[in-house]
Amino acid sequence: MKSWRVVGIDDSFSKDFCCIVGCVMCGRSVEGFMYDEIAVDGLDSTEKIIKMLKRSKFYGQLRCAFLNGITFGGFNVADIFEINERTGIPVVVVMGREPKMDEFRSALRNLDNFEQRIAIVERSGEIYRFKNLYLQLSGVSIEEAGRMIEANAFRGKIPEALRIAHLVASAVVHGESKSR
Amino acid sequence: MKSWRVVGIDDSFSKDFCCIVGCVMCGRSVEGFMYDEIAVDGLDSTEKIIKMLKRSKFYGQLRCAFLNGITFGGFNVADIFEINERTGIPVVVVMGREPKMDEFRSALRNLDNFEQRIAIVERSGEIYRFKNLYLQLSGVSIEEAGRMIEANAFRGKIPEALRIAHLVASAVVHGESKSR
Repeated sequence: MKSWRVVGIDDSFSKDFCCIVGCVMCGRSVEGFMYDEIAVDGLDSTEKIIKMLKRSKFYGQLRCAFLNGITFGGFNVADIFEINERTGIPVVVVMGREPKMDEFRSALRNLDNFEQRIAIVERSGEIYRFKNLYLQLSGVSIEEAGRMIEANAFRGKIPEALRIAHLVASAVVHGESKSR
Repeated sequence: MKSWRVVGIDDSFSKDFCCIVGCVMCGRSVEGFMYDEIAVDGLDSTEKIIKMLKRSKFYGQLRCAFLNGITFGGFNVADIFEINERTGIPVVVVMGREPKMDEFRSALRNLDNFEQRIAIVERSGEIYRFKNLYLQLSGVSIEEAGRMIEANAFRGKIPEALRIAHLVASAVVHGESKSR
């Protein structure tokens, strides 16, 4: 199991700047990073994530993409169904809290392209409970997702690649890593 | 030894953009990152590195700063004597190849503020051989520097924090990590 490569993708933003960072790991070892910038409250996160994954030298070796939620840069919602379909990489969305879907849908109403955003949210599908985490999945079963999280979490409960991607993204935006 | 926190600082640049990244580690665990931007061929690397270290929540816990050479963003030479003096943190410059000082001095002649740059280079002092690495030191003995490198290198010969700082900096500039 330890020879898998996985990528954890997280974002950070301030005002109108948002970066997304992918951290590639093989077991406990950091193999490399991916980086791109997206529009705050835009609709380009799906395309940018797909592009970032497909241009990577690690593409083809990635057995799982962990995402920290489906929203990046504010309400730039990522389509995990499309990411999985176009990259072939199983996608596991890892959330520390249960998303409040009603509040989330209401908030989306304040943005342009509401119909498109809500369609992406609906496609992200069922929210699964795994231990004290909440997951959304595309291209992978809950059993397999659980195994992949456990095999790749070394500090705390979330996959290490996701933890490190967060540390990098927040440092780029704020000058130093911030806690979640 | 494993409870030390150390930071590895590296840069990456393209055209007129240059970022510096600090990776903080405690043993094998990545604790956080620092980030700033400097001027390509400028003279602000010393100040920016000092500021980055001193504003960090890890400042005071850092037992060593590993630097990948003394030049950042082209010929933006960092004054390791001043960094050590103003932060109190021992500085270990880690180079994979012996720097060609004569060529380096000649190249500096093509830049403005030649006298200031060459003075910084002279202050960086003796080049030590440690195994197949070349080191420059400030505020630390060669014996202690060697111990710190060995205690913090887990993949290859250079400290892991320096390896990861390089992966992050090159990803921010190029979209994906590049090899050295």
